[in-house]
Amino acid sequence: MGVWEAAKEELRRLLGFRALLSRPEKEVYRYDAILVGEEPFAVALPRTREEVQALVRLARRYGLPLVPRGAGSGLSGGSVPLGEAIVVAFTRMDRLALDPATRTAWAEPGVTTARLSEAARPFGLFYPPDPASYRTSTLGGNLGENAGGPLCFKYGVTGDYLLALEFVDAFGEAHLLERKAYDLPGLLVGAEGTLGLITGARVRLVPIPQHRATLMAAFPEVEALAEAVSRAVALGAVPARLEFLDPACVDAVEDYLAMGLPRGHALLLVETDGDDAELVQEELSLLEETAKAHGAKVRRAQDEKEAEALWRARRAVSPALGRIRPKRVNEDIAVPRSTLPEVVREIRALGEAYGLIVVQFGHIGDGNLHPNILFDPRWESEEKVWDLAHAIARVALRHGGVLSGEHGIGLMKRKFMAEAVDGETLEAFRQAKAALDPEGLLNPGKLLP
Amino acid sequence: MGVWEAAKEELRRLLGFRALLSRPEKEVYRYDAILVGEEPFAVALPRTREEVQALVRLARRYGLPLVPRGAGSGLSGGSVPLGEAIVVAFTRMDRLALDPATRTAWAEPGVTTARLSEAARPFGLFYPPDPASYRTSTLGGNLGENAGGPLCFKYGVTGDYLLALEFVDAFGEAHLLERKAYDLPGLLVGAEGTLGLITGARVRLVPIPQHRATLMAAFPEVEALAEAVSRAVALGAVPARLEFLDPACVDAVEDYLAMGLPRGHALLLVETDGDDAELVQEELSLLEETAKAHGAKVRRAQDEKEAEALWRARRAVSPALGRIRPKRVNEDIAVPRSTLPEVVREIRALGEAYGLIVVQFGHIGDGNLHPNILFDPRWESEEKVWDLAHAIARVALRHGGVLSGEHGIGLMKRKFMAEAVDGETLEAFRQAKAALDPEGLLNPGKLLP
Ligand SMILES: Cc1cc2nc3c(=O)[nH]c(=O)nc-3n(C[C@H](O)[C@H](O)[C@H](O)COP(=O)(O)OP(=O)(O)OC[C@H]3O[C@@H](n4cnc5c(N)ncnc54)[C@H](O)[C@@H]3O)c2cc1C
Ligand SMILES: Cc1cc2nc3c(=O)[nH]c(=O)nc-3n(C[C@H](O)[C@H](O)[C@H](O)COP(=O)(O)OP(=O)(O)OC[C@H]3O[C@@H](n4cnc5c(N)ncnc54)[C@H](O)[C@@H]3O)c2cc1C
Repeated sequence: MGVWEAAKEELRRLLGFRALLSRPEKEVYRYDAILVGEEPFAVALPRTREEVQALVRLARRYGLPLVPRGAGSGLSGGSVPLGEAIVVAFTRMDRLALDPATRTAWAEPGVTTARLSEAARPFGLFYPPDPASYRTSTLGGNLGENAGGPLCFKYGVTGDYLLALEFVDAFGEAHLLERKAYDLPGLLVGAEGTLGLITGARVRLVPIPQHRATLMAAFPEVEALAEAVSRAVALGAVPARLEFLDPACVDAVEDYLAMGLPRGHALLLVETDGDDAELVQEELSLLEETAKAHGAKVRRAQDEKEAEALWRARRAVSPALGRIRPKRVNEDIAVPRSTLPEVVREIRALGEAYGLIVVQFGHIGDGNLHPNILFDPRWESEEKVWDLAHAIARVALRHGGVLSGEHGIGLMKRKFMAEAVDGETLEAFRQAKAALDPEGLLNPGKLLP
Repeated sequence: MGVWEAAKEELRRLLGFRALLSRPEKEVYRYDAILVGEEPFAVALPRTREEVQALVRLARRYGLPLVPRGAGSGLSGGSVPLGEAIVVAFTRMDRLALDPATRTAWAEPGVTTARLSEAARPFGLFYPPDPASYRTSTLGGNLGENAGGPLCFKYGVTGDYLLALEFVDAFGEAHLLERKAYDLPGLLVGAEGTLGLITGARVRLVPIPQHRATLMAAFPEVEALAEAVSRAVALGAVPARLEFLDPACVDAVEDYLAMGLPRGHALLLVETDGDDAELVQEELSLLEETAKAHGAKVRRAQDEKEAEALWRARRAVSPALGRIRPKRVNEDIAVPRSTLPEVVREIRALGEAYGLIVVQFGHIGDGNLHPNILFDPRWESEEKVWDLAHAIARVALRHGGVLSGEHGIGLMKRKFMAEAVDGETLEAFRQAKAALDPEGLLNPGKLLP
């Protein structure tokens, strides 16, 4: 029996054959939502922390890298396997325990973001981080990417809700750490599975606000929209959601839904929330007035139903874009709000120069933009597409922005990292990695260039 | 010229003699607010990041440890020098720039907490982390200890407000890092100067709530008070401040201020805040009813002036205790709220068993207690006092609590660390330290046992 056969045999003994996938199921675990990796050596679906520990020890002995994986909804290739590797899919570790008295929940990594929030609802609580993928994405993946979402402008991102973390390190040791002394739990947040395997987390829940209000503002120019946002925030507005669609996006959604959106305009969607109905409306009025002062036409939702309809436009962006071209590269940059008008302009010009369709939308409150390059691989060069993606990332860096607003670095932006952070910072990252995973067993080839 | 003389000469050339203290001024830098260290080799008062970098390089060459220091208001000996060391006091690095549009401030480490918040006020903003020492404590020290305060139950601690960090590492390299990819800035928060020298920070500011309301509730028993708090929080109350004084504390303050406090009772002080006057009062009513249901007499402040008067009782705790005994050891533990009644009882019993005066107060909303041992070194044994402090820390650990609620580990609790965290966690801490400061130049002898 060869060494690989022995490894497989051990894995089977450890997990049982139903927790160890072989072809063709294994194929599915090559992908995340943007990249395709190589066929993994094995796909393991552990059910307990002890199984995860045993897996790490086994992997160490055979020198097999481990690739942690949640739902595989990532947009930077973080959970995509490279070379002979064991994918550790956490979807079966999905125990969840709520403690309404302390407003916390203990969740295993496979619990989906939606389930966490829904389980809290009967207690008048919710879990704010809301990536658009929240129905499928897992807490482990959210922590791995420090995921955000529309609500993050007001409520903060995944890491802001983490109270304690249980993880298995590269030596197979389990740790349960509060965020005290050296904040090692915090170091694992956003580390994309390169520093430890998360097996549980205690997270904070918050009370559901009692009132919400929504408006949609249509601007003739993206620049005016960005300025209105800047101004309203400076005046003290803290909307719960602040989403932006550029004219190309608006046209795509209108083609798709025919809901009467103003073609050729840039759209701003705003939601305010709070426990006092009047204040919630007042805050929305502040946004309304600022938008109007910047030349926008404003439509204010009269009730929850109309609000829902307006938000449908935002949620329809992904499917709408899929109708224009079969493939897309979803960029994810974050820039200072003040530079938004210029950044949006430069990215539009780049798209024109490359002769590729580029649409832009995002959580504009945080300066988080998602320029999407749409293409058809049958007659448009993928190389050119990636080249453009790289050029877009450079625009962000030039304006004091960052490479990844919320989707992470993963495999996709690894190479850009060297441009984004200085040599000493990279060296500090490398030392942290070397200290926690000296043999490079955990998700090698990700994040660090 | 001996090697030490050479080092002094170089320091003088680097900083100028007015930025380098000698005896007797140097003496002052042996203390923080709780411990006395050894006379430092030198006290350096850098004014720029470049000077800090040069200092680190110099210290490396001579193998002289560096002890970062803010205001020296720490309560765990973190900024106290040991052996031949250079104290780096950051009080002259106090530039501050506000950016109301982005609700952020860029501050050097020597800016005091109070100044940061006051500078934000004209823009309708404030900086929430409010250690009771906020008039003197510095942002560098707040970050070093991840300081909290009464407002932290609702608003979170120092680290929750950090957006980006500039620091000089043990090699003299400067880094300016956002909290992205590996959250190294987060790793420095609460690290007590053992991983890097903080030279600047971008922090988040928040809008000042428009209304506040205060009540004081007097309970015949500490246990009932703790239960009322637990209950109100479970019912959805998120007071801005939730402070507790045990009967011994109340008597001490009453002896001092004669303001008519109910002797022999445990006191709860509550402040609610928000933008809606009615809701703020309603939230306070929830607290009031819960307190009454647990046997308390409640006094509700009718206006800001009366509220101020009530809060005076809390602020008077420190001076009041100073009148009972000249010295005290201020413990700082945090325990699950549900265990508070039992923890308070055990600590009281310990004080009686040791024949020492122990009073208790703290941010009860977070389960953060400050048991204080009062003593007179002329006729009470300091050894016994520290023994009792250790026993109190053990009570916290036994009830699932932590060693340091907010004052840090420093020198004082180093030895307890081994009891508080498991061996593998300590090993992980040691590896992180070794990666960032392989020669142990930064605040050696602190935090890690
Ligand atoms: C349509 C769509 C919309 C999206 N919208 C958003 C958005 O609004 N905001 C946003 O932030 N993201 C968004 N995303 C990206 C993605 O959904 C998030 O990054 C999400 O957090 C990934 O979760 P996952 O469970 O799918 O993780 P995966 O993709 O499986 O993994 C993500 C990373 O986490 C690591 N990881 C997973 N589990 C663990 C574990 N247990 N321990 C250690 N590491 C682990 C992986 O190795 C990988 O590096 C979107 C994606 C899609 C497809
Ligand atoms: C009366 C009183 C009340 C207090 N109340 C509270 C309270 O309510 N909540 C609370 O949390 N604390 C409280 N404290 C403790 C103390 O004030 C806080 O820990 C405060 O954050 C210390 O700030 P400092 O500037 O005095 O720092 P220092 O005591 O000088 O230093 C604290 C630590 O930070 C490190 N440090 C300082 N500057 C830097 C830097 N630039 N780079 C890297 N490391 C650095 C030091 O090495 C040390 O380890 C109180 C203290 C007193 C005396």
